Order: sequence, then C-alpha cells, then structure tokens
Amino acid sequence: MPDLTDADTEELVSVADELADAARAAILPWFRRDGLLADDKGAIEPGAGFDPVTQGDRAGEAAMRAVLLRRRPADSVLGEELGSVAGSSGLTWVLDPIDGTRGFLSGSPTWGVLIGLRDASRALYGIIDQPFIGERFSGGFGRAEVTGPRGRHPLAVRPARDLSQAILFTTFPEVGTPDEGAAFHRLARHCRMVRYGMDCYAYALLAAGQIDLVVEAGLQSYDILGPLAVIEAAGGIVTDWRGGPALDGGRVIAASCPQVHAAALAVLGDVA
Amino acid sequence: MPDLTDADTEELVSVADELADAARAAILPWFRRDGLLADDKGAIEPGAGFDPVTQGDRAGEAAMRAVLLRRRPADSVLGEELGSVAGSSGLTWVLDPIDGTRGFLSGSPTWGVLIGLRDASRALYGIIDQPFIGERFSGGFGRAEVTGPRGRHPLAVRPARDLSQAILFTTFPEVGTPDEGAAFHRLARHCRMVRYGMDCYAYALLAAGQIDLVVEAGLQSYDILGPLAVIEAAGGIVTDWRGGPALDGGRVIAASCPQVHAAALAVLGDVA
Repeated sequence: MPDLTDADTEELVSVADELADAARAAILPWFRRDGLLADDKGAIEPGAGFDPVTQGDRAGEAAMRAVLLRRRPADSVLGEELGSVAGSSGLTWVLDPIDGTRGFLSGSPTWGVLIGLRDASRALYGIIDQPFIGERFSGGFGRAEVTGPRGRHPLAVRPARDLSQAILFTTFPEVGTPDEGAAFHRLARHCRMVRYGMDCYAYALLAAGQIDLVVEAGLQSYDILGPLAVIEAAGGIVTDWRGGPALDGGRVIAASCPQVHAAALAVLGDVA
Repeated sequence: MPDLTDADTEELVSVADELADAARAAILPWFRRDGLLADDKGAIEPGAGFDPVTQGDRAGEAAMRAVLLRRRPADSVLGEELGSVAGSSGLTWVLDPIDGTRGFLSGSPTWGVLIGLRDASRALYGIIDQPFIGERFSGGFGRAEVTGPRGRHPLAVRPARDLSQAILFTTFPEVGTPDEGAAFHRLARHCRMVRYGMDCYAYALLAAGQIDLVVEAGLQSYDILGPLAVIEAAGGIVTDWRGGPALDGGRVIAASCPQVHAAALAVLGDVA
C-alpha cells in the first residue's frame, strides 16, 4: 500500500462519499422511470447473460469518473461500463454504478452503487449505497458505518454461531454453472434459512449483522471489491470458495465469522 | 357491499392509514434489533413451514386491533396472529402485521404491513406498507397511490405486453408443492425475467407498473386481500390459478393486463 497519512485517508473517504453522492444524483432519475431503455449485452436466460445496460448505469459511472478526474487524477479507475484508466498513485477505484441491474429494472430497492478502493494487494475502503432508500454502508481505514433512515450507526457482523443457525443469501437460485449451483444447494441444506434476490444489498445485510453468509459465483472485481472492504471493516470474512483472495471476483463467499466460513467452505468442497 | 357514502369511504381510508401508522410505530423498533426472538410455529425447511413469529408481528397486530376497537367496533377483524372477531357491519378488516417474516428476520426491506378491507364478496380497499423505506401503496374506492421517498404519486400497472416480455416474481423458488413449483417454472420459461425474494413488495411493484406478474401458492386470505385491492385499483388483475376469485388465498396470480394474465393461466394449466 502507498504510505497514507491520516489526512490522506480523510481525503479518500471524502472522495468516496462524493462519488456515491454523484452516482445517486445521476442514477435516481432513471429508477422506476417510464420508458427506461435496456440494451441486452448478452442472452436473456435468468442467471446467465441477461445484463441490461441502462442509461442509469452509464450516467452513474460518468458522474463518478468526473469526480475522480477532478479530485484524484493520479489514481487508476476500473469501472463496469467505461473500462480501465491507468494511474500512477498505486491506488485504484473500482466502480459499479448499478450492481443488480435486473433488480433496478424491476423497481426493487436491492440494487446499489458499489465503490471500492484498492492497492496492488488489498481492498482499502468500500461503499455500498442504496439511493432509493437513502442508505449507505461504508467501511475501511478503521471505520465501518451505515447512514440511512435511522441516522448513523456502526456496522458489526453477527456474533459467531454454528452453520446450522446461519442465514444464507444469494441472488439467483441457479448461482452459476450447474456444478456451482449444486455446491450452493448442498450448502443451503446445512443452513437455517436461504433467501434470494437481494443483489448487493445482501452484502450490506451481512455487514450490518443481519445475516451470516452470502455465496455467489461468476463475479467481476467491481461486483465484490466495495462489499469486501465494507464486510472486512465490520468484522467479517470474504474469500473465494477455497479460502483465497476474492478481490478479483469469481466464486465468492462472505461470512460473518470464521466458524461459519470454515464450515461452509468444507461443504462447498472442490467444485469443477 | 353495505351502502357506503363518500363520508363512509373517507372514514374507512382514514382508518386504514391510521392502522398502517400504528403498525409502523409498533413494528419498526423490532426491525434489525439485536436479540429478536423468533419462535418457530412450524418446520424449518425453506419454502415450507418455517414461520417465525416475532414480537414485531404481535405488537403490530395488537396496535392495529386497538385502533379498530376504538374507531370501527362494529367491523369484523381477521388477523394472522390473533385470530377472528365477528362484527355486525358487513365489513371485515384483514390484517397481516408482517408479511414476509423471513425477510423481516434477515433485515431485508421487502416485508410489509398488509391491510385489507372487504365485504362478503369483494376486496374494497387495501394497503401495502413498507415501514423502513417509509413507502405506502394504497388502493380502492376509486383511488390508487403511493407515498414514499419521492412524495405522492398515482399507481398504475404497466402497459399491456406479451408474456414473453413479462417480468415474473415469486418469493420462494420452490413456490409450493412440487406440482405447483413445476407449473411455476414452466411459466418462468415463457417470461423475460424471473426474480425471487421480494415478499409482498412484489405486489407493490406490480401495482406501481414495474413488473408484470406475481405467482404464489399456499397463501392465506391475509396474505393477499390488501395487495389484491391495491392491484385492482391500479388496473391489474388478481385471481386464483383458474381465473376464479383469490380473496381467500390459495394459489394466486396477479397480472398487469388481461393479455399476460390469460397467457400465464394457459401455461400454468391444471395443477393437481
């Protein structure tokens, strides 16, 4: 990590908040708007390649990039919609203007703006913002908090418990490939409860101490880097399905405690 | 229907709002609260009998019944938690203080307070209230509106379209019995997109013109009467899977237009 002073981290937290504010303002006018255009980037099968790109996505990322050009011109940027820009600072902003585009297109308040900050090896800071509810989960640099309808509160994961008492979330019941899906459903049978459809809001619920596990597959870096930073700051664990780093996406497991994490990895096992 | 004057319907709308306000105040302190107790009324299999009763449920229904005792002592009441009270007015309030208890227990903003008013044969008025977001969908007596983070707006279902362009929601991928689940997934393959996990918020999204279909099975009257009134008031259609009345629950289909409704019924077919 580049050497960061307290003033540097204050500046970075302030930039992250400005990014989230800018994305909110750019995206909200498109939410639940009549005539929203959705281009299919891929196929239409649920859980597969249906990935509508809306004007909201593009407007949100453009707004965030404008903030970065002004405030952090030496940082790198990796965004879902507008690609990569290389910088010289050793820091990279990883942006997903609308994570959960299908949730967005169906009016569900479960999509979010994801903002992550990383160096070469680690997630440093992240935000999960839900603009319609007006709820922002953030964490890193020694802080973890939520602001929203009930004001400002610290974030902390749930107390440790057994896997059999865990609440498990994922977005699509298919989860990923058939092998990945089979492993997920094997895990689900060991948990107390499984729920679907929350998009990135599931990671926020984990950081907020409401649930114990989120398991997904086929993620990109911009899908997980922000949530990863928030969850780690709240005391949780985010890895791939073998316990290795999850910064670059792929198969991701987020857990509230080492006990649930280890037990879930053991059940997921080696997946082809 | 009992003969209702304009003054009567104004009074009933005002009572419904007071019920929703009372339930919000009683339930919200229990949402995302540490140490929330959940008694299992049934088994723990997802989609089957796992039905935690929280203090929030009981507090919400008690608060609503207190309002009715004061303002509408001659009306009947049917509530999820506290049973039936017979009245003499010909009107019945049908109450579900927390529809989506599992969503509630996992911190998801998708549960709701459901309030329905009916006479012997028809739903007259309904409310779907999401207290955490502060969003209230209401309809009946010639009005249909939402109030929430964006103020007050009329509700109207989506324009008519083909089933192949429809967005379909249900809460649990299992849907109901294996036969019911098979019929649902046959239907899902005809739709553009299927999403899970929204609890009663899915009915609100349909009334708000965001989605086209909600299909569920195994419902009770208190799960559907409020949403039914809101959706009909917004221009949609709610029936059972054979096109008959859905006031008493069971297998329910809610659709944005006759075209999607008829096509979906044809695909669902006769289910054992």
